[in-house]
Amino acid sequence: MSQKAQIGVTGLAVMGRNLARNFARHGHTVALHNRSYGRTKELVEEFGHEGTFLPAETAEQFVASLERPRRVVIMVKAGPATDAVIDEFAPLLEEGDMLIDAGNAHYADTRRREAALKAKGLHFVGAGVSGGEEGALHGPSIMPGGPKESYEALGPLLEDIAAKVDGEACCVHVGPDGAGHFVKMVHNGIEYADMQLIAEAYDLLRQVGGYSPADIAGIFQGWNEGRLGSYLIEITAEVLKQVDAATGKPFVDVVLDRAEQKGTGRWTVQAALDLGVPVSGIAESVFARAISGGVTEREAAVAADLPGPTGGGGHTGDLQADVEQALFASKIVAYAQGFQQIQAASKEYGWDIDPGAMAKIWRAGCIIRAKFLDFIKQAYDKNPALPTLLVDSYFQDAVAGAQDAWRRVVVTAAQQGIPAPGFSSALAYYDSLRAKRLPAALIQGQRDFFGAHTYHRVDKPGSFHTLWAAEGRPEVDA
Amino acid sequence: MSQKAQIGVTGLAVMGRNLARNFARHGHTVALHNRSYGRTKELVEEFGHEGTFLPAETAEQFVASLERPRRVVIMVKAGPATDAVIDEFAPLLEEGDMLIDAGNAHYADTRRREAALKAKGLHFVGAGVSGGEEGALHGPSIMPGGPKESYEALGPLLEDIAAKVDGEACCVHVGPDGAGHFVKMVHNGIEYADMQLIAEAYDLLRQVGGYSPADIAGIFQGWNEGRLGSYLIEITAEVLKQVDAATGKPFVDVVLDRAEQKGTGRWTVQAALDLGVPVSGIAESVFARAISGGVTEREAAVAADLPGPTGGGGHTGDLQADVEQALFASKIVAYAQGFQQIQAASKEYGWDIDPGAMAKIWRAGCIIRAKFLDFIKQAYDKNPALPTLLVDSYFQDAVAGAQDAWRRVVVTAAQQGIPAPGFSSALAYYDSLRAKRLPAALIQGQRDFFGAHTYHRVDKPGSFHTLWAAEGRPEVDA
Repeated sequence: MSQKAQIGVTGLAVMGRNLARNFARHGHTVALHNRSYGRTKELVEEFGHEGTFLPAETAEQFVASLERPRRVVIMVKAGPATDAVIDEFAPLLEEGDMLIDAGNAHYADTRRREAALKAKGLHFVGAGVSGGEEGALHGPSIMPGGPKESYEALGPLLEDIAAKVDGEACCVHVGPDGAGHFVKMVHNGIEYADMQLIAEAYDLLRQVGGYSPADIAGIFQGWNEGRLGSYLIEITAEVLKQVDAATGKPFVDVVLDRAEQKGTGRWTVQAALDLGVPVSGIAESVFARAISGGVTEREAAVAADLPGPTGGGGHTGDLQADVEQALFASKIVAYAQGFQQIQAASKEYGWDIDPGAMAKIWRAGCIIRAKFLDFIKQAYDKNPALPTLLVDSYFQDAVAGAQDAWRRVVVTAAQQGIPAPGFSSALAYYDSLRAKRLPAALIQGQRDFFGAHTYHRVDKPGSFHTLWAAEGRPEVDA
Repeated sequence: MSQKAQIGVTGLAVMGRNLARNFARHGHTVALHNRSYGRTKELVEEFGHEGTFLPAETAEQFVASLERPRRVVIMVKAGPATDAVIDEFAPLLEEGDMLIDAGNAHYADTRRREAALKAKGLHFVGAGVSGGEEGALHGPSIMPGGPKESYEALGPLLEDIAAKVDGEACCVHVGPDGAGHFVKMVHNGIEYADMQLIAEAYDLLRQVGGYSPADIAGIFQGWNEGRLGSYLIEITAEVLKQVDAATGKPFVDVVLDRAEQKGTGRWTVQAALDLGVPVSGIAESVFARAISGGVTEREAAVAADLPGPTGGGGHTGDLQADVEQALFASKIVAYAQGFQQIQAASKEYGWDIDPGAMAKIWRAGCIIRAKFLDFIKQAYDKNPALPTLLVDSYFQDAVAGAQDAWRRVVVTAAQQGIPAPGFSSALAYYDSLRAKRLPAALIQGQRDFFGAHTYHRVDKPGSFHTLWAAEGRPEVDA
């Protein structure tokens, strides 16, 4: 075996297969390995004409076929399967070689693995890869973490296969350690919020406006030409205009209304809670999916005929325009929260993540790709220390212009009994953030009362505790 | 040392000291131990007249002074300190002896500790204790988990010192393993929601109604006589009527409006996410505290003068009555979510928790004690398999009667730019639960489109995947 591969891929299910083909199509010689050789053979038989593949039957052959430093992309199921592959390959590798986990690992696992492999002189790169099977083949958004120095040997290959915007690759070294998988996780969390907000917009247009799915497909197509232009808006139009072949009904009406999830949304919220970052938009999206899938509770509620509003009423204002505004403003809030979470993690773990660069590499290849991300990039270019996207002039003006419409939409939803947890939670967040005074002061008073937790004052520094006179307080016994 | 103690307490800071005194006041001989003997001596000097204490200078003396099976209550800081105490005492104990962790441990730690000690023949009881320092002395609500058989020897002592309602102790064996600490955690999560809802009610009365803190104290006192009657409502009135001695201003106005937290609310939401239970009310409460404490973001938002609503407007309806209804309905939602979480954990871990019994032991001694809990107990007595509190006839009727007012309050908050994340999120939850059809179907369509995640149909069983025709789908390559 004289010819050596620049990169190897182990785990050749559809994602791994497509990544391998993408590398080959870009002129790289790609070593291939899979637990069962059948898949490897299949890939070469079907797609061998696309480039140069070096299929290996064993891990040893695979490793031997790679040039140094070896670059081994792992594309297996997150969790124990990833550890098993690492355990298989680590003993075969030499100092400076790289294991690249391109799966959807939890960033805490990535941190653990990176530390363990560093001790053995190996580079471990947790790389978020977004864009699904199609992205893997034609150009994903890639978010590699791991040691900075590994990016020198690895980055150019990843940039080759990544999606491009005006010739710029959607791939950058996110930061050391688990930074790549963390950012990919938040990307998915934001995706949950985006999807929920779109679902609420659709629901309001349908229930309040009386539009058909086909009508709404047209509305979304129109929005896609404007500031909301994005992959998710585009595919929403596709889904809504789809007609079910078997019944002739709108496709969306034959789909069971129970949203499923794979876990990254939940992880995002859990991590945000540990960091103390309020990601209410993402949380409400995760919960909305959970509610929709809560068959027992929903069936009981429908059987009990839990009553809705007694008043009727339509919408005051231009429904289509107002919903577009509500969607845009709520989306800004969701992204502001997600970026705050990235910045909080960057600070907590010392990752030194450039938030503008994240917006930049999300502009193509990934599910949340959108024009919108250009404005986020510009906001952080203008002010790298921006405390929240909501005070960037573009976003501030957008929300200022949207807010009356946004409020009307939240009002209509509440009045008509149409759930809009994403829109209303985002509005409550906006109003909380801009409040000069929050009732949190009362909560601190309560906490001091029942738990002697103390409080701070508005007029002088220090911690204070009031000697509450009534019964039920510690001081009774003092 | 001929006289033996029925129970021992190690860790004599204020919580441990008060628990020890409570046992002694109920006629039990109490062994005392603390890392530094000073605190032990102090307790005996100050409170020795209250009962019989056996102070011990060393762990060995302490253990020797206890009758068998030994019952050792640990009251130290949750985390490594608890492990250190366990490591100190476990080797000194004999088969069948009990270590009772009365601190605020995470239930996952309790599960780990219980399993480890079981292997050594020891009983480990994670016991949630609510009611703060005062409760510890005069009667807390106690939620012991751990092995059922340990409750035979331990339960009567705990029931002695627990709060009582009509002579019934607020203490019951919650379930094996970490069940006690889990239930205590959810209790605290519900407490977060209760407090946030009260804070929103106050804020609306003040900002929309123009009432002073003293006026609002009176309103809360009135509510405390009705169905909202509870410890938290009562102390809210106390806090609101308090005048700051230094400035003569209402106390609540001199308190810094940044709510702090110790972690159990966050844990509750994180655990709920793992269980797939939508606890949006608790989550919004935790986030509201985080927002209030987000100094950088808030200061930037206020400095940028993020605009509020341009329209003015008051409230359509009787504000006081409407806010009371919104508060009651939102509270029902928060409790419905919390109890669903308890039931989900009970199922997941095989704890066999009786939800009605939890409501029963929360009726006194703890922070969320309220008349309200009687209705929850009755709901589960009537139907132990109740899918959600919202379909119990009492709660269903209450929400049905409240909902128009509730909607008006959410509308007013949105129109006037007053954040009400708790009220609006609870309403969105209610409207989601009762919806015959949710836009989750669109989300499933999107997921199938970009990720081939498949979907279920309303009209036949099975998983389906649509061969989306447009570009950007896996099938392009098939």
